[in-house]
Amino acid sequence: MEIAILGGTGDLGRGLALRWGRDADHDLVIGSRERERAVAAADEYREHLAARAVDATLSGAVNEEAAVGADLVVVAVPPSHVPDVVASIGASPAEDAILVSPAASLRGDDAGVHANPPDAGSVTALAAEAAPPETPVVGAFHTLSAGLLADLDREFEMDTLVVGDDPEARRTVATVAEDVDGLRALDAGPLANAPEIESMTALLITLARYDDGLEDVGVRFR
Amino acid sequence: MEIAILGGTGDLGRGLALRWGRDADHDLVIGSRERERAVAAADEYREHLAARAVDATLSGAVNEEAAVGADLVVVAVPPSHVPDVVASIGASPAEDAILVSPAASLRGDDAGVHANPPDAGSVTALAAEAAPPETPVVGAFHTLSAGLLADLDREFEMDTLVVGDDPEARRTVATVAEDVDGLRALDAGPLANAPEIESMTALLITLARYDDGLEDVGVRFR
Repeated sequence: MEIAILGGTGDLGRGLALRWGRDADHDLVIGSRERERAVAAADEYREHLAARAVDATLSGAVNEEAAVGADLVVVAVPPSHVPDVVASIGASPAEDAILVSPAASLRGDDAGVHANPPDAGSVTALAAEAAPPETPVVGAFHTLSAGLLADLDREFEMDTLVVGDDPEARRTVATVAEDVDGLRALDAGPLANAPEIESMTALLITLARYDDGLEDVGVRFR
Repeated sequence: MEIAILGGTGDLGRGLALRWGRDADHDLVIGSRERERAVAAADEYREHLAARAVDATLSGAVNEEAAVGADLVVVAVPPSHVPDVVASIGASPAEDAILVSPAASLRGDDAGVHANPPDAGSVTALAAEAAPPETPVVGAFHTLSAGLLADLDREFEMDTLVVGDDPEARRTVATVAEDVDGLRALDAGPLANAPEIESMTALLITLARYDDGLEDVGVRFR
């Protein structure tokens, strides 16, 4: 499968690229606003994996080009950029492509970090509004620590919640998520359930702040 | 410690009473709007535990009387009743008493169950507004399945999140929560962090609906 990670030079993009690069056999395309940064990141990830004797297929391109022909497009950009980035790629992904939204909109105060959902209700819904009507949009990866993902020496047993209106697309994203060793994907149903999931990103940051030993906290439902 | 469980005839109240009754040595007072129901519930819980050779201290009273002299008052009533119940007990708990709010305000649609916070931001904040200013209010027990708690044959390793503006009160509630075997209490900081915690109640109900084997789902942060 060809996976484009838009905003793939950021922390979550790096973590996902390294884990998929090590644990699966996908063609990974790192997208960025600037071609040079995307190519440099892809080179760095490839070398990082090569040092572990892993030969990963990684390339870099500007976001719009990275999405061309991709089967899965992970929109790992800040929430406020999601509509523009999703609109800019339009229908260039593969015919049955799925957009994946991992972003959560947050605000801070003295107590901690809080959910700050857009008027659409969730960033996933924002992405769905901006996507072509025939392209399913799935929310996933909101509860994963980018730092933990990027540290390949650390094993984990974590859950990610998969949400979106197309059940088949949810299943596909769940399968690709579970390509990452130690990651279990749970079905969270339709898009209307995304706000509670995106809210967990804030909660995890709060727990990392108030509880020793939970710096890269994730979650397991049981 | 004397613990009053207001609304203690309900599912969560029953689960907490049985677990505390078995695993700790507190004086438990079950509160209800009707004295007869409270006494009947306390009798039932005591017999349930006696059948397991556990001798628990359990009595029943109307909510207002149950709170008198209590060190910890768990307000396990529906969210819409929280302000009235908290106001009705006033300053009758013990001098250093702590109010504990486990309720989450929910609404349903076709997709599932959603957070439906009151204008105060959270049910915990609603309780804090109704409580005497000197009484600390702590949110806890939002992520626990009442059915799982009430089934004493089932062991678990679950987390509960403890939130409120008084750090000392949070620590006390965490200690009492951890009296329950298998329960770990995590510090979630000030009251302003309660909305994200109460939102998890909705998410857990959603996961129970969409994922096989998660009927009594709880959460572990790691």
